[in-house]
Amino acid sequence: MPQPMHNTPRVVIVGAGFAGVFAARELAGAKADVLIIDRNNAHAFLPLLYQVATSAVESEHIAAPVRGILRNMGKKAANLDFCMAEVRGVDFGKRDVLAHGPDGQALSLPYDYLLLAPGSVTNTFGTPGADEHAFSLKNLEEAVRLRNHILRSFEAAAWTPDADERRHRLCFVVVGGGPTGVELAGAMAELMAGALKRDFPRLALASPCVTLLEAGDGLLPGFPQGLRDYAKRKLTALGVDVRLGAAVERVTPEGAFLKDGGAHRAATVVWTAGVKGEPVAARLGLATAPNGQVLALPTLQSMEHPEVFLAGDICRAEHAGRPLPMFAPAAIQEGRHAARGILRLLAGQKPQAFRYFDKGMMATIGKKAAVVRLGRFSFKGLPAWLLWLAVHLTYLIGFRNRLFVLANWAVDYFWSERCVRLISRRNPLA
Amino acid sequence: MPQPMHNTPRVVIVGAGFAGVFAARELAGAKADVLIIDRNNAHAFLPLLYQVATSAVESEHIAAPVRGILRNMGKKAANLDFCMAEVRGVDFGKRDVLAHGPDGQALSLPYDYLLLAPGSVTNTFGTPGADEHAFSLKNLEEAVRLRNHILRSFEAAAWTPDADERRHRLCFVVVGGGPTGVELAGAMAELMAGALKRDFPRLALASPCVTLLEAGDGLLPGFPQGLRDYAKRKLTALGVDVRLGAAVERVTPEGAFLKDGGAHRAATVVWTAGVKGEPVAARLGLATAPNGQVLALPTLQSMEHPEVFLAGDICRAEHAGRPLPMFAPAAIQEGRHAARGILRLLAGQKPQAFRYFDKGMMATIGKKAAVVRLGRFSFKGLPAWLLWLAVHLTYLIGFRNRLFVLANWAVDYFWSERCVRLISRRNPLA
Repeated sequence: MPQPMHNTPRVVIVGAGFAGVFAARELAGAKADVLIIDRNNAHAFLPLLYQVATSAVESEHIAAPVRGILRNMGKKAANLDFCMAEVRGVDFGKRDVLAHGPDGQALSLPYDYLLLAPGSVTNTFGTPGADEHAFSLKNLEEAVRLRNHILRSFEAAAWTPDADERRHRLCFVVVGGGPTGVELAGAMAELMAGALKRDFPRLALASPCVTLLEAGDGLLPGFPQGLRDYAKRKLTALGVDVRLGAAVERVTPEGAFLKDGGAHRAATVVWTAGVKGEPVAARLGLATAPNGQVLALPTLQSMEHPEVFLAGDICRAEHAGRPLPMFAPAAIQEGRHAARGILRLLAGQKPQAFRYFDKGMMATIGKKAAVVRLGRFSFKGLPAWLLWLAVHLTYLIGFRNRLFVLANWAVDYFWSERCVRLISRRNPLA
Repeated sequence: MPQPMHNTPRVVIVGAGFAGVFAARELAGAKADVLIIDRNNAHAFLPLLYQVATSAVESEHIAAPVRGILRNMGKKAANLDFCMAEVRGVDFGKRDVLAHGPDGQALSLPYDYLLLAPGSVTNTFGTPGADEHAFSLKNLEEAVRLRNHILRSFEAAAWTPDADERRHRLCFVVVGGGPTGVELAGAMAELMAGALKRDFPRLALASPCVTLLEAGDGLLPGFPQGLRDYAKRKLTALGVDVRLGAAVERVTPEGAFLKDGGAHRAATVVWTAGVKGEPVAARLGLATAPNGQVLALPTLQSMEHPEVFLAGDICRAEHAGRPLPMFAPAAIQEGRHAARGILRLLAGQKPQAFRYFDKGMMATIGKKAAVVRLGRFSFKGLPAWLLWLAVHLTYLIGFRNRLFVLANWAVDYFWSERCVRLISRRNPLA
């Protein structure tokens, strides 16, 4: 087992997502100096990105500055520090994380124990045109970019005399019928039937369309069949054109084109059909699965370096013989477990194997419509939606964020209003 | 007098700032088709830009989508429409506004009456380096850019071993002792003494500094002397280094250098020392004052084209023989007056001369500290601050915006917390 090289052992956590933040909480008060590194200064609550993209909540309200999170842990978190930096490499021999600071300065951050939790990025599986022409929804900037684009498409359509061109601008395609695709398509349909319909009364005849393309035979793979059928029914009722067995072959500025020859003309294509491990992990020379996840021991330790742990979307962990989905509940449990593994090593004990506790999974479709699998039980409709609200507010960090998001949801619920209809401008010098 | 060329006369308003929005309200329900053009889809409440720059409020909360403003006017606003476009020129002969739509499409928007209210931009008076190296605070993007930069400077300083370099990153210079400079310097000092001091406990020894440089012999020119002295005392008490008679000769990445040879090293220089009329007005071939304002008749009509009106910062209007300051109260009154002038022309009457009603002026310095001149009366301290709060909340458009800004102010007041400490990333494709 690796031994600390000086009096106070140093733990470095790469990534302030769910895994990193919950690991840091576990390590608060430990006899170790803990440093969290992230390229952003804030933890972002990614499950609500689709609400940023559809003008429902402010990007600032689903972001919590990491230093604020540490402060709110109180005095016991005095051993935690933060460094805003982009990780460029790890010297596993010297035990140094190599990073670029906010002004581009080169930083060398030594560790005795390292937790890698850099997350995931969109996976377009090499589909031609998807990287260039499709929007993505994996971080705050991409969500704001999609919001800007949706609103700008309506502003442009309002002053487009040609009917075909106007229709093209008002057609939106979401690729991928997983939770992100379902939630985004539902929220887009509600935005267009509510706030945007009132904003653009003269566009009423040229009604906008939202199409959801799923390559498989049903939405929400992994959910019980009854919930999958319900999700399709509800989305259709919201006006979403749900197409199953629709495998996208290529994306162009004209739209999405299917392997079976079908074509969906749309100025906006959003790709939610896949995620893969953050490329930085592969660059570190660690053994990865085909989807870019780093292979880990059952203890979440790296196969090559026992002092390195993995957690979150980057970590290939298994449950019941199958890889865990890359989602928040797994990241939280893995982050906690990896931190406990480091604490055990600090105490001279062996790390234990990770066991995922399956609480279930949930997705929202629209107002008063969600699906929840809770252990062995399934809910849908209003009870599922209320549970979805409660869980998301609970895991959203920061009292103020919860308050503001709840206020926005109330406005949306009672008046079908989406308040954040701001097109932010390009900021070349930001 | 010009006559409408068809049944329903067309009014075009360029700019959805204070002048444009208040003119539109005046024209709601009139027997004319009114089109508001703005390059942004939202009206921005510029008096609170300094609060966006200092992490106190969200940029979205001081922006109100123009289409939402029109909707909230109710049915009588059915004659109002909006076009998101960048004005490139006006064909005064054909009476066409030439603009680029959100997708770059060329638009030609005909008018019978035109109200030009495009606002103002920063004026650095040709000071070498100021345009390149100084931050500015005239729109939402610049405010977010400054917020990002302030927060990033602290993040970088926290990992800068060299003491001189660290000090450089933690020194902030504000150029200009008018209301914007005073409000920004005060808010920066409070941000650094409050939230950022708690965020960066290890930077405590290298305390940050805020310097306010004013070329004249006192702050807040135009305010009564007692208030000007009070503002200086209060800013100094907040820790701002106020330098009078400090004329900036040039700005470099090293800092601000004075005509008297003085040097203020700082990684951040913010230029608030001047505004000038939006350059588009000069490009239209209208006669302008040296500061880029367009000369107008006492009725706010253009000297050259009686069917064209001017309002807001772009309009050179006078009060008591002196040009009016370029600020919101003048813009609101001018916008209303210009709209009434158009209504009079529509009714076959002559427009009346504009008379500015001097309600006074106000500026805030910090918590419980503001200065107000109300007609002939002067206030300072807590009563002035409460009045400042009330007036700014009143003129902030949108119930939700008021609620959210008030909530942010309450958090700031009771906990000296600045919640919006998010460094947003560059978004090359926004």
